[in-house]
Amino acid sequence: MKDLKKIGFSKLTLLDDALKRIASLTTSTSLIEVETSKALDRILGENIISAIDIPPFNRSAMDGYAVRAEDTFGASLSNPKKIKKIGTIEIGEQSDLAVEPGQAIRISTGAAIPNGSDSVVKIEDTKIDKNEISFYTSVVPGKNVSKKGEDIPRGTEILKSGIKIKASHIALLSSLGFNVLKVKEKPLVSIFAVGDELIETGNPLPINKIYNSNSPMISSLVETYGGQVVRKLSLKDDKAEIKKNLLLSSTDSQIIIFTGGTSVGTKDFLPEIVHECGEVLVHGIAMRPGSPILIGSLKQSLIFCLPGTPVAAYVCFLSIVGITIRKMLGCSNLDPRIEIIAEMSQDVPVGQMGYIHFLRVKLEKKGSKVLALPVKLKGSGVISSLTQSDGIVEISEEMEGMKKGDNVLVYLYP
Amino acid sequence: MKDLKKIGFSKLTLLDDALKRIASLTTSTSLIEVETSKALDRILGENIISAIDIPPFNRSAMDGYAVRAEDTFGASLSNPKKIKKIGTIEIGEQSDLAVEPGQAIRISTGAAIPNGSDSVVKIEDTKIDKNEISFYTSVVPGKNVSKKGEDIPRGTEILKSGIKIKASHIALLSSLGFNVLKVKEKPLVSIFAVGDELIETGNPLPINKIYNSNSPMISSLVETYGGQVVRKLSLKDDKAEIKKNLLLSSTDSQIIIFTGGTSVGTKDFLPEIVHECGEVLVHGIAMRPGSPILIGSLKQSLIFCLPGTPVAAYVCFLSIVGITIRKMLGCSNLDPRIEIIAEMSQDVPVGQMGYIHFLRVKLEKKGSKVLALPVKLKGSGVISSLTQSDGIVEISEEMEGMKKGDNVLVYLYP
Repeated sequence: MKDLKKIGFSKLTLLDDALKRIASLTTSTSLIEVETSKALDRILGENIISAIDIPPFNRSAMDGYAVRAEDTFGASLSNPKKIKKIGTIEIGEQSDLAVEPGQAIRISTGAAIPNGSDSVVKIEDTKIDKNEISFYTSVVPGKNVSKKGEDIPRGTEILKSGIKIKASHIALLSSLGFNVLKVKEKPLVSIFAVGDELIETGNPLPINKIYNSNSPMISSLVETYGGQVVRKLSLKDDKAEIKKNLLLSSTDSQIIIFTGGTSVGTKDFLPEIVHECGEVLVHGIAMRPGSPILIGSLKQSLIFCLPGTPVAAYVCFLSIVGITIRKMLGCSNLDPRIEIIAEMSQDVPVGQMGYIHFLRVKLEKKGSKVLALPVKLKGSGVISSLTQSDGIVEISEEMEGMKKGDNVLVYLYP
Repeated sequence: MKDLKKIGFSKLTLLDDALKRIASLTTSTSLIEVETSKALDRILGENIISAIDIPPFNRSAMDGYAVRAEDTFGASLSNPKKIKKIGTIEIGEQSDLAVEPGQAIRISTGAAIPNGSDSVVKIEDTKIDKNEISFYTSVVPGKNVSKKGEDIPRGTEILKSGIKIKASHIALLSSLGFNVLKVKEKPLVSIFAVGDELIETGNPLPINKIYNSNSPMISSLVETYGGQVVRKLSLKDDKAEIKKNLLLSSTDSQIIIFTGGTSVGTKDFLPEIVHECGEVLVHGIAMRPGSPILIGSLKQSLIFCLPGTPVAAYVCFLSIVGITIRKMLGCSNLDPRIEIIAEMSQDVPVGQMGYIHFLRVKLEKKGSKVLALPVKLKGSGVISSLTQSDGIVEISEEMEGMKKGDNVLVYLYP
């Protein structure tokens, strides 16, 4: 058993290779229908083709008068043209009124342009006396008219599968009449924090124990990344108990996450349990923090055993588990984090090349530049290094570090 | 009545002045308690002081042996020091074992440092034969030991009221034992889309009508900004109906939002209704798009009548309504949008100085720069100008526009 634990660690896998390995085993979730108005933050599961024209009819872009443009030709402040008002068309109204030469119809922004007219004169450029309107400006045909289909002609592909649905998408989809949408089902996730030292919050803290912060953190991240937590438990360092929960979760979860119990400590049972029940895909990745991670599979489930130190667990989630959830969701952009280009405020040498290093940085605006200030160069247990920083700079395996003044990409925390 | 509508518009208010006016009338929501693990995305309503030390005890930062550092002095690969192993301390274990001179205790990462020892030698730097351990390296006192309180001493203020709670905050708060938190109650919001031309999605589209896209959009934005929708309806251009709903909403909503019916069209009843029932604070803001906005108050409610054109309604929400919701929530950062510094890809003159212009731009990475490309210079009805762009550049009232090469701040869409 001891040997098995050590075999995993003797050969660290590169992060990119581990991601490829996982990707080849990741299956997509199913499609379900939801109401458009309730689709906020879901992942769109279909390409959307407009079945109507936008605007759906020629409509006025202004409050004013629908006219035949040629009737206004030559009009000016000193030489207004006089045209007869024959009626009004309201927004949403279906009217039989038509404009003949020398006639105009009062019309509001958004109302349909009546037959016979080809342009709209703004109300500000007119004056009315009974039914005789004076036009103080001339317009060309098409002026102040939004043409049917000019924004989105029927048949246009307007959204692609794989986007995260925001308020503006909901507006666009609603304007095209989509009442329901196909979105991806949320991957189901089981979460276990493992360790005899863990005490749940709300209880007094006995000596030599620590509060469990990993399962609430991981559960929040799962939610942020679009997964659904089906089970969240703390477990003792008890092999039988851990095994039982792993097997149970493999019947209903696409992803099973453990924190703790994954290294080479005397009570780190997870490597042998995963080996006995399923398959160990990767044990140990050349990343700092996070190297003791173990990834496995069991039936249709992927298993992620993250280090128990919170910052390491957090970094592993962002770099590996979160990306897997987004792949299951069919996201066009697997990493949802916003990237900011910044300039390193100081030299940052790395302890050991061959590892990808995840550096926590705080951003500071300085003129038209953004500076990245490292907040903590080590200490993967120190959660406040996350709450006191803005994002992560990745220092790749072949780099000796970062130099002051280097342009770096900062991945903002989700 | 007609005069009243026009009075509002004859004098446009500057956006900043309007925001100050609203801010002076904005009241804060109450505090409620929620479980820490369910506090994701809520706004923290209290300053948090740590009641414990982190780490709560001196603990090992490595798997190895707890020793008295002086017993290792002089140890090297060629000249190992031999020390006697007297036992093991597991993580979470409360042990009476103590280290005497010439003794060592096997210890795992995270376990409590036993009395008598002051440092830990990594397992990799040792070799064990029965109970005799050879140490191949020397350590100084404190080596590989995380001291009690070294990360967060008891009594430290670790989080301030007004932050939006993320996964990392939940981890930090849990690690300090906080089981429940005070967060701000969500402001209650009523939403009405007004207009005879509106048809709900899911129905066929009669001629000269359009689908209602504003209420689902505004409702999603309210959710994104931390509010709670209590009512969402479409209303005809019917003065009595609008008035009835406004009065009803003023009994249970801190914010009441209308879209449409706010301009100077023949059926724009909102200005007179707000004037009759409550107080018109602002009618018309020098902003494009969005100028016909009307803001009012009625008892404890703020009323926002946004233009019916979706892009204008969207921009007004981001610049005015969203900020008001966040102020009610006590957010330390009233505008939650992420700001990116980018370079304008082309000249953008504005039509009329004196207005703040909201320019939709798409971002494009170019080397270590980010370019901002204007997607659409006009057309406040065109929702696809939002879904095809990444954010907004604000061109302030006194500017004639942007020049190619200018550094601009892009506010990413929420």
